[in-house]
Amino acid sequence: MHQLMGGSVKFDPSNMVLTAGATPAIEILSFCLADQGNALLVPTPYYPGFDRDVKWRPGVDLIPVHCRSSDNFSLSITALEQAFSQARKRGVKVRGILISNPSNPVGNMMTQDMLYSLLDFAEEKNIHIIADEVFAGSTYGSKKFVSIAEIIDSEYIDKSRVHIIYGLSKDLSLAGFRVGVIYSYNNNVLAAAEKLSRFSSISTPTQRLVTSMLSDKSFIQEYFETNRNRIREAHDAFVEGLSELGIKCAESSAGMYCWADMSGLIRPYSEKGELELWEKFMSDAKINITPGSACHCIEPGWFRICFTTIALEDIPLVIERIRRVVESCKSSS
Amino acid sequence: MHQLMGGSVKFDPSNMVLTAGATPAIEILSFCLADQGNALLVPTPYYPGFDRDVKWRPGVDLIPVHCRSSDNFSLSITALEQAFSQARKRGVKVRGILISNPSNPVGNMMTQDMLYSLLDFAEEKNIHIIADEVFAGSTYGSKKFVSIAEIIDSEYIDKSRVHIIYGLSKDLSLAGFRVGVIYSYNNNVLAAAEKLSRFSSISTPTQRLVTSMLSDKSFIQEYFETNRNRIREAHDAFVEGLSELGIKCAESSAGMYCWADMSGLIRPYSEKGELELWEKFMSDAKINITPGSACHCIEPGWFRICFTTIALEDIPLVIERIRRVVESCKSSS
Repeated sequence: MHQLMGGSVKFDPSNMVLTAGATPAIEILSFCLADQGNALLVPTPYYPGFDRDVKWRPGVDLIPVHCRSSDNFSLSITALEQAFSQARKRGVKVRGILISNPSNPVGNMMTQDMLYSLLDFAEEKNIHIIADEVFAGSTYGSKKFVSIAEIIDSEYIDKSRVHIIYGLSKDLSLAGFRVGVIYSYNNNVLAAAEKLSRFSSISTPTQRLVTSMLSDKSFIQEYFETNRNRIREAHDAFVEGLSELGIKCAESSAGMYCWADMSGLIRPYSEKGELELWEKFMSDAKINITPGSACHCIEPGWFRICFTTIALEDIPLVIERIRRVVESCKSSS
Repeated sequence: MHQLMGGSVKFDPSNMVLTAGATPAIEILSFCLADQGNALLVPTPYYPGFDRDVKWRPGVDLIPVHCRSSDNFSLSITALEQAFSQARKRGVKVRGILISNPSNPVGNMMTQDMLYSLLDFAEEKNIHIIADEVFAGSTYGSKKFVSIAEIIDSEYIDKSRVHIIYGLSKDLSLAGFRVGVIYSYNNNVLAAAEKLSRFSSISTPTQRLVTSMLSDKSFIQEYFETNRNRIREAHDAFVEGLSELGIKCAESSAGMYCWADMSGLIRPYSEKGELELWEKFMSDAKINITPGSACHCIEPGWFRICFTTIALEDIPLVIERIRRVVESCKSSS
C-alpha cells in the first residue's frame, strides 16, 4: 500500500486485519460498525457488490446519495446532508458513509478538499467513514490519487472513525488469490475484525506466494508502472473508439472501467429502456456490460464497461460490435 | 471423501459447496438453516469453536444436550427429546441438531443405529441434521467409521434435512490451507450456501495445489494409512502413560485428542476447581489442555488433550510433566 501510493503515506501493520479478499473485509466492517436495520450512506452510482456485502448477512441498509452527470458524478456534501436528515426523519440510524475512491464504476477520484469535507461531515454527525481504495494503484490520469490515510495525520481529526479497505484483486490483478485488508485506526474495530477474520482467512500457500512477491520491491515498482501504462493505453483507445460512435464517457483517471453515457440510445428513457439496451448488448453483440441501474445510478442510460479484459488489439473488434448496436438503435428509433 | 471413507460411499460434486475451511462452512449452514434467535441442539461435550461459528454472526443459539461419562459420553435420544421439549416450552424454535462425528473432543463415533435414531428424531420434529465429519479419516480403532451419507440412501429417508461438513484441516493436516466443504442434499441450502461462500472462497493457488495432491490417489492412500498408524501409536502411548498416572480416558477411536478424567485431582469438584487445575497445567507444566467446561461438559474435571502435536519420542517428557502436576495435586489435598 505504501509503495503503490508513491510512498506518500506509511501504513502500520498493527492497524491491519487481513481477510480473504476485499469482499469479506467490507462485510466484516459492516458487522463491526452497524447493527441490523442501521444504514450506511453511499454515493451513487456505486459498486453493485456493496449490496451483497453490506445487506445480505449484516442486515445493514444502504442509503443512496445521488450524484449526477452534471457534476461528473462527484459527491456533494449537500446531498449527503439531505440523505442523512431524511434517514433520521424515517427513524433510521446512519452509522457511516461507504465510499469507493477511486470510484467504481465512474473511475473519478475524490479531491483532498472533498475528503476533508467528508471528515468534517462524519465528525459532525458522529458517524464512520469506510473508504474502499482497491483501485488506489490503478491510476492512469495526470491527477495523483489521495488516500484518506494521507490527510488524517492531524491532531484535529478523530482517526478512530476512519476505516480503509484494500486488496490485491484489482491493483495486482490477483482476484483469485483472495487477499484483502481492513486498515483501521480504531482498536475496538480491529479487535472485532480480527476475530471475524477467522471466517475469511488467507490460506498459507497464498500468504507465502504473496509475501515473496511483495518483498520484491523492484518487481512491484515495475509491475505498477507497466500496469498503469497498459490501463492508460486501453482506456484511451476504448474511450476514443466510443467517442467516435458518439458515446461520451464520464471523466475518469483510475480503475478498469469507463462509465459511458448511452442515454441517447434508450427508448423509453427509463430503467426499462436501459435494461433493454443491456439485453441487446448481451444477445446481439455478445458484450456483457453493467447497466447503471445495477449501480443504483439515478440517471438512466449509463453503463459501466470494463476495458481491461480484452487485449489492446481486440478493442477495434469490440468497438465495431458496439457500433452495430448503436446503429440498430438509431435505425429503430 | 469417497476415498477416505474406504470407498463405501459416493459423493456427488453437484452437492458440494467449497468454503475456506470447515469454520465458515458451519457458519454458512447456520445462516441458511436458522434465523436469529432460533437454536440448534448439540450433544456435549462439544467442540468449543461451535459457539463462535453458530452464535457470533448468525445469532443462533446452541442448546446443550448433556452426555455423561457413565455412557462414555454417547448421545441418547431421551436426552435429545428432553432438550427439544424444554426449548419448545421456552418458546425457542429448534431448527436442527449439530453433531461432530467422530466426536471432538471425546473421539468416539456414532453407531449406525444411533444415526438411524437421529434421522427418525429429525424427521419427527421436522428439523435438520448438521454432521461435522472432519475427523472421518482419522480413525485408529478397530471400529469402522459410518458417515451419515452412507445410511441415507433409502427412499424412506428425507435427505433434504441432512448436511455434512468436511475439510482438509484434520484428516490431511492442512489446517492453514483453509479448505472446507458443505455437502448437502438440499438444493435450496446449496444455492444459498454457494452465494455466501463468496465471503469465504478458496484461493486459486491453494485450489491448484490441493487438486494436484488429491488427484494422486496412491499418495492419498499411503498418506491415510501412515497417518492413521501414527495417530494410533501416539494415542496408545499417551493414553497408556496417563493410565500409569491413574488418569483414565474415555474410550475413543478417532481424532487427535484424548478425553481425560482428572476429576479426582480437582478441589473443589466444580468448574472453579477444573479451571484452577488448567491454570496449574499452563503455569507449572507449560502444557495447554482444554478444560471440559470450554466444551460445555456437565461433569467437572474432564480435559481434552491433543496428543498429535508432539513427536512420539517426546511423549514420556510430557507424561513426566503431567506426573508432577498430579503429585502436586495429591500432596496438597
